[in-house]
Amino acid sequence: MASLPRPPRARFGRSLDLRRGRVEMLHGNGGMASAQLIEELIAPAFDNPWLARLDDQAALEIPSGRLVLSTDSHVVTPIFFPGGDIGSLAVYGTVNDVAVGGATPLYLSVGLILEEGFPLAQLDRVVRSMARAGREAGVALVTGDTKVVERGHGDGIFINTTGIGERYAAPPLTAGSVRPGDAILLSGPVGDHGIAILAAREELSFETTLESDVAPLTPLTQAVVASGAAIRCMRDLTRGGLAAALNEIAHASGTGMMLDEAAIPVREPVRGACELLGLDPLHVACEGRLVAFCAATDADQVLRAMRETPGGEASTRVGEVIDDPRGFVQLQTGLGGLRMIDWISGDQLPRIC
Amino acid sequence: MASLPRPPRARFGRSLDLRRGRVEMLHGNGGMASAQLIEELIAPAFDNPWLARLDDQAALEIPSGRLVLSTDSHVVTPIFFPGGDIGSLAVYGTVNDVAVGGATPLYLSVGLILEEGFPLAQLDRVVRSMARAGREAGVALVTGDTKVVERGHGDGIFINTTGIGERYAAPPLTAGSVRPGDAILLSGPVGDHGIAILAAREELSFETTLESDVAPLTPLTQAVVASGAAIRCMRDLTRGGLAAALNEIAHASGTGMMLDEAAIPVREPVRGACELLGLDPLHVACEGRLVAFCAATDADQVLRAMRETPGGEASTRVGEVIDDPRGFVQLQTGLGGLRMIDWISGDQLPRIC
Repeated sequence: MASLPRPPRARFGRSLDLRRGRVEMLHGNGGMASAQLIEELIAPAFDNPWLARLDDQAALEIPSGRLVLSTDSHVVTPIFFPGGDIGSLAVYGTVNDVAVGGATPLYLSVGLILEEGFPLAQLDRVVRSMARAGREAGVALVTGDTKVVERGHGDGIFINTTGIGERYAAPPLTAGSVRPGDAILLSGPVGDHGIAILAAREELSFETTLESDVAPLTPLTQAVVASGAAIRCMRDLTRGGLAAALNEIAHASGTGMMLDEAAIPVREPVRGACELLGLDPLHVACEGRLVAFCAATDADQVLRAMRETPGGEASTRVGEVIDDPRGFVQLQTGLGGLRMIDWISGDQLPRIC
Repeated sequence: MASLPRPPRARFGRSLDLRRGRVEMLHGNGGMASAQLIEELIAPAFDNPWLARLDDQAALEIPSGRLVLSTDSHVVTPIFFPGGDIGSLAVYGTVNDVAVGGATPLYLSVGLILEEGFPLAQLDRVVRSMARAGREAGVALVTGDTKVVERGHGDGIFINTTGIGERYAAPPLTAGSVRPGDAILLSGPVGDHGIAILAAREELSFETTLESDVAPLTPLTQAVVASGAAIRCMRDLTRGGLAAALNEIAHASGTGMMLDEAAIPVREPVRGACELLGLDPLHVACEGRLVAFCAATDADQVLRAMRETPGGEASTRVGEVIDDPRGFVQLQTGLGGLRMIDWISGDQLPRIC
């Protein structure tokens, strides 16, 4: 943290043991140990002038004054998984919620809830991953807070991130503006994140080379809006997968949805794992995919823009919005039948994000 | 939630049992149960047009584009205590961090981490308290997120709030601008919140009529800035009490502080409990007090403005900033001696906020 006057080492006595040290209750008491944790471990990773001021809040500028605000707490288990970790997930998860609002994500706040005994080495790894993800997504982590709870009253680390972006889409993109006839565009295969997490859980016996799709959606959302088409809304697919996103939007807009099963890409390892575990891929979480809604006449133009953008190469048109005040989401199967795609109702996939 | 198309009751089958129901894992899976928890319990309390849109982010306007952003996670135990609860604390805590930045708090995000088994009746009480506190402080709770963790991996309820305010103070108030000669003004007695929490813990045997001082500091911070004096910085006193706030500011500004013990108000029950428990009142948390730093020549003018404002009637000048590159905070005792006021270093007061 170049701009912070570095305290003499003696300020904290011994420096933190990042190899064998653990989070202790006193790291949460707002005193010297809290300051040491922040100054030696957290702030150096997030290095930026706002944090360096050591205020309890960050003063920021957004020239237009048009904001988008979004928040997510992350409780994923395990915290390290193929393709990412709770740190990158916490950054990209909130970046994506801001980006699909037609805004450029700019600033994040970070709230850590640590459990007594959590290894400092893992905290260091998570914090560095957050910093890397922040650089990748072009957002600054400008203010934060760290709390510690007793052993047995937390689970290692929970991370809240709250993101602010400057909205460039006008009017605001909102689920309520979706209307019958609109095309439903999907940016890539579904379910990679959820299956990668499940495969990383020790109690599960299946192996896969699959990685989480966790990634920032900023470029793709910008390409969608820049296509010039009338975009109604975008949404990133997270908990509950494609099914939850479409049901939420159907409910908010008072419409129905008709999907074409053959058009929805599902990778082989995801399909296989879902069959093994009795899951529907449409219910499985992604962390780097979105759906976009636009007028049907604009669909090809938007799809072209998506396919030309990294992360959107496999974009497809997966269905259309229909007139259905009941808000049903239905799927035309390969065999010509119709299947209801309901919200997930059981408890199959806890703590996926 | 007037503007949300109310789903027919059949949408969720049976409505939530707010008397005997408990949080279950499936309330966190992003499916129908999650939607029911939000639509029946959370959204009605926070009723506002942003939430009613059911988007994953809120589109907001801040005319000037000058923002202040602050975040805090709240893990206080017990969650209900004399004078407040984790809900009002989560709202006012973040409102205060924004307000002391010289900004008018406008919007909050809310991130809930619930433990499986947490009573819905308690959740309902907390959420209503948050809504009431939001109205009291003039902030809208515009976007949120709810996660559920398994029994034994959380502790009932943790609440992150992140606040956005529009900054009216120019230049930004920042700890780094404090300089030798500045006056240190304190808005009222210290330690009420911390002692009220400790008294509410079952394992402690002392009783007190003391209530937490938890309250929004917006009017007081506005009065300080409107006094017309050159204000360097303000800070609300939370974890670590007055001692932590002053040490942080001394460190950030490369100055020392000299306090006058006789000028620092401490209520009798706080003084008594501190003697009983071996605590220093200067280390005990407040949630409705602030310190303000201004040029010494302006001190009387600022004090007058503070005393005329509800919540600031007992404001006093408690010391001055001195030239001390070591950043020491010292106290002149009633007996004429000098005592170092260090950061809290032990682990006396866990989970006070």
